[in-house]
Amino acid sequence: MSKQRILSGMRPTGPLHLGHLHGALANWKDMQDKYDCFYFIADWHALTTNYEDTSNTAAFRTEMMIDWLSVGLDPAKSTFFVQSEVKEHAELFLILSMITPVPWLERNPTYKDQIVQMENKDLSTFGFLGYPVLQAADIIMYKAHGVPVGIDQVPHVELTREIVRRFNYMYGDVFVEPKAILTETPKLLGSDNRKMSKSYQNAINLADPPDVVSQKVSVMITDPQRMRKKDPGDPDICNVYSFHKIYSPPEMVEQVNKECRAAEIGCVQCKKLMAANLTAQLEPIYEKRVHFEKNRDEVEDIIKTGSDKAREVAKATMEEVRAAVKI
Amino acid sequence: MSKQRILSGMRPTGPLHLGHLHGALANWKDMQDKYDCFYFIADWHALTTNYEDTSNTAAFRTEMMIDWLSVGLDPAKSTFFVQSEVKEHAELFLILSMITPVPWLERNPTYKDQIVQMENKDLSTFGFLGYPVLQAADIIMYKAHGVPVGIDQVPHVELTREIVRRFNYMYGDVFVEPKAILTETPKLLGSDNRKMSKSYQNAINLADPPDVVSQKVSVMITDPQRMRKKDPGDPDICNVYSFHKIYSPPEMVEQVNKECRAAEIGCVQCKKLMAANLTAQLEPIYEKRVHFEKNRDEVEDIIKTGSDKAREVAKATMEEVRAAVKI
Ligand code: SF4
Ligand code: SF4
Repeated sequence: MSKQRILSGMRPTGPLHLGHLHGALANWKDMQDKYDCFYFIADWHALTTNYEDTSNTAAFRTEMMIDWLSVGLDPAKSTFFVQSEVKEHAELFLILSMITPVPWLERNPTYKDQIVQMENKDLSTFGFLGYPVLQAADIIMYKAHGVPVGIDQVPHVELTREIVRRFNYMYGDVFVEPKAILTETPKLLGSDNRKMSKSYQNAINLADPPDVVSQKVSVMITDPQRMRKKDPGDPDICNVYSFHKIYSPPEMVEQVNKECRAAEIGCVQCKKLMAANLTAQLEPIYEKRVHFEKNRDEVEDIIKTGSDKAREVAKATMEEVRAAVKI
Repeated sequence: MSKQRILSGMRPTGPLHLGHLHGALANWKDMQDKYDCFYFIADWHALTTNYEDTSNTAAFRTEMMIDWLSVGLDPAKSTFFVQSEVKEHAELFLILSMITPVPWLERNPTYKDQIVQMENKDLSTFGFLGYPVLQAADIIMYKAHGVPVGIDQVPHVELTREIVRRFNYMYGDVFVEPKAILTETPKLLGSDNRKMSKSYQNAINLADPPDVVSQKVSVMITDPQRMRKKDPGDPDICNVYSFHKIYSPPEMVEQVNKECRAAEIGCVQCKKLMAANLTAQLEPIYEKRVHFEKNRDEVEDIIKTGSDKAREVAKATMEEVRAAVKI
């Protein structure tokens, strides 16, 4: 039996950080052996929120591919492509838009949330409203069986399934209903204890050299109640401790927990221990990145080969779509 | 100085009738010498209202091209293409959707009108809301200077101009602001005195043979107050008289007017006079149609050649668009 197909993508809107690594990429990497994975750089999607400044999109696209390769995504196993290099996505978006009721989009919970969250941007665009339609086109173009997503994206996959059912009912069975594959995300906050995000400038990026990582760790907020070393701390509310739990060996995690509560270890020292483990684990990623930064042609080749392969699949799907829609 | 460019299109949703001839095609024909005309078969647009039954779209597309050729549209002068054969329209639609505010679309007067008018269809789709965005893509793809439209379409052209201004402001001067060229439409009603329309089955089609035309004229409603030949009639409220004004020589128009008011001519006789003039004028159109029906390969060739030419123009525009949007 052939492998089930997986599709997932990321918008090239800035450098990737540890949040992306643990929230998606580590999972993408694990899935490479079990599934036939298609991972794509969603540059058209980037326009939905970043249409007003697209000056860096092309650069981000290459940097993102380098990040992916650096964490161990492997072109020998998976297909990497750029959305805008496969024009068929636009055609399928147009056709799906004809059968998608506006109320389905308006009731999408992330739609109004995001408009409120990104209050500094004007997101009342037709394209932003239609974001889930484009996402549906991306997924079903490859007849993906599964879509690894965070919990907030589950309604989008559900909408994709509704669109598939409507299309298949109207025009015949062309598409596969994809399933959401929930990705668990460990809670890693940024240096200021807010969600790790490019916009807050509080992120540890996959492209950061070890000394920058250590420096960023050194300014992380710890237990905000702990003013001096002689005060006992509470690891449960300390972001540095969350990092320890991921990057340090279990003995050290236990020891830090105990010594922090007993005021036997200072935050400076504690951060140094964690930073050493973190940089050790990021080192192979960083080394790979150094390699790919010197070999950008190789990176562009991987993007091109993957996009060519994706386009072949997309062309075949669109032949079926046109035959079904009779257009 | 090179000719200014004109773009216009029609949705292949059924046979064309006299309303199309006088409301658009006669004007399209006249413009062929003065302008560089691009006329297209809007099959993707047909989906906006006809997505639930697309079984005839492909047939309508060829029939429509035959109608166009029969009325004197000339591939030696103008470019004829099929929208869905130029995938670039979908890509530009996607990009324009990112910068078009939803309120611009919601305030479009024809949007709510049509939803009310076509109450038997579910038009609350995302694609129907975005109809003017696709229309904008169609027009500006070819950098058309002018768009011949009926009065109801003027707001759409205005919206296209707004989208052009927004795009050019954000990404640089790529597009031309098109002007609406108003087409005057003589008031020709259907045989039942309602608007001539395929859906009312009251239309005289360009494809109707002369005997069918005469038969359709014979059942036309006249002055509804005039019950018998000895009652005087009122040509001003008679649809047959509207036809006379277009198809009969001025002397006959005057004579009919006088004799009708004086009850000197009966409606049956009056219709026969008009039908003779109408069929005489439709005859060359009908003859051409007979020719093209026998030479469908020639028709398909014209569509293919025109679509290839349009695609070249569209490709060049999209190169500029991608460079401007940096994607
Ligand atoms: S000692 Fe470590 S775990 Fe405790 S508050 Fe300081 S940084 Fe956090
Ligand atoms: S005579 Fe002619 S113009 Fe007068 S009502 Fe009859 S059809 Fe109309």
